[in-house]
Amino acid sequence: MRVVKMTLAYEGTAFAGWQRQPDARTVQDALEQSLAIIEERPVAIVAAGRTDAGVHARAQVASVAVRNRLPPRVLMRALNVRLPHDLRVTGIEDVAPDFDARRHARGKVYHYTMALGDDPGPFVRRLVWHIPHALDVPAMAAAASLLVGEHDFAAFRAADAEVVRSTVRRAFVSRVDREDEMLVYRIEATAFLKHMVRNIVGTLVEVGSGVRPANDLAAVLESRDRGRAGPTAPPHGLCLVAVRY
Amino acid sequence: MRVVKMTLAYEGTAFAGWQRQPDARTVQDALEQSLAIIEERPVAIVAAGRTDAGVHARAQVASVAVRNRLPPRVLMRALNVRLPHDLRVTGIEDVAPDFDARRHARGKVYHYTMALGDDPGPFVRRLVWHIPHALDVPAMAAAASLLVGEHDFAAFRAADAEVVRSTVRRAFVSRVDREDEMLVYRIEATAFLKHMVRNIVGTLVEVGSGVRPANDLAAVLESRDRGRAGPTAPPHGLCLVAVRY
Repeated sequence: MRVVKMTLAYEGTAFAGWQRQPDARTVQDALEQSLAIIEERPVAIVAAGRTDAGVHARAQVASVAVRNRLPPRVLMRALNVRLPHDLRVTGIEDVAPDFDARRHARGKVYHYTMALGDDPGPFVRRLVWHIPHALDVPAMAAAASLLVGEHDFAAFRAADAEVVRSTVRRAFVSRVDREDEMLVYRIEATAFLKHMVRNIVGTLVEVGSGVRPANDLAAVLESRDRGRAGPTAPPHGLCLVAVRY
Repeated sequence: MRVVKMTLAYEGTAFAGWQRQPDARTVQDALEQSLAIIEERPVAIVAAGRTDAGVHARAQVASVAVRNRLPPRVLMRALNVRLPHDLRVTGIEDVAPDFDARRHARGKVYHYTMALGDDPGPFVRRLVWHIPHALDVPAMAAAASLLVGEHDFAAFRAADAEVVRSTVRRAFVSRVDREDEMLVYRIEATAFLKHMVRNIVGTLVEVGSGVRPANDLAAVLESRDRGRAGPTAPPHGLCLVAVRY
């Protein structure tokens, strides 16, 4: 059977996340419904990362087995005319029949964007977390850097997360950069636990606000205790920007 | 009485334009309702330009007489906490008591943004007109330049526009620039007729599509006949970016 790899962009605002759910509008549902019309049969699409409700993606990757023989570019257009405007297929390619967007992902890159100071205005408000008070950016950058490397990230996992075999992950990049009025936290890691990036950002903002020292991040990791980390940052600042294979 | 000048940013998508209307969500209504709570009385706010339904503003300017004595920055915050998230007051200053945002405007700047080729994706779709086919950009630029100067713009006025004293306007800037995958039409003029920018853009796109030659714009102006110009471009590519006083 033919397997295709799709690259997807979506604004998460009006989606209840990636994963199929009864009575909720999800990215997986929208995509599967569009493809099912073309395939004239139900389909099951796998994504590299199951983004939460409200989280965006600039380059989510998904894979699916199809029976149609449409050239990739034609298939992409056929999907896009049926998709809602907040979800676009930006690329499709044929891949090896054993390709699985989730199992084969070697790494994912997330960006979390904060707007500092004045209200960021109506054009970016859906894509950033507005933090009106002053933040100690160098302290946040120092704290973020402590997460680079292989660590047990259990302290940053959602309290209600399903049990996983291991909570050890390797972060290749973990850094905070000031870009004009925006502050961007970038993290690239082998894989992510539920709410991991948002819990890290909530903790980094506590560091930036002077609530905890930068080197506290090492103790939080060590503790493996969700209660030691900060609050979960809101979803709308988060964006899945790349998946590595 | 104290008069304040307000600078406003709004995403026009969910607004039925600037002007107050029964049973419609408009920018003027939202702003007047917020200010009326602070003033504890009805207020009438005047804007430099009455943007159409779906048109955006990065720096609309409005003026209003107020009785409150809040410092400008405090007044701005008090308004913003009451305003919907797609409308922000980005600046307030005290001005001379005779200041009128509409009558005193010496010029306004509009940008109209088109996305060329591939779908521009979910993050900018509300702010650009997507044109999938190829456009002859140099021909559009040549056509746009013919509008610089003082002209009778009657041919570019909405067919249902109210009668105005004169349809002569002076355009200081009228140009088309390619910016990566975007094409931006910029026009700065003393004042604008109803739908003028959108009708110019619709005509320029016909030039770019090879439907009419670039120098046809001179004949269209000359004719003063709305029937000679192209179709009205959709509102969501248009943004009021500055008002000159």
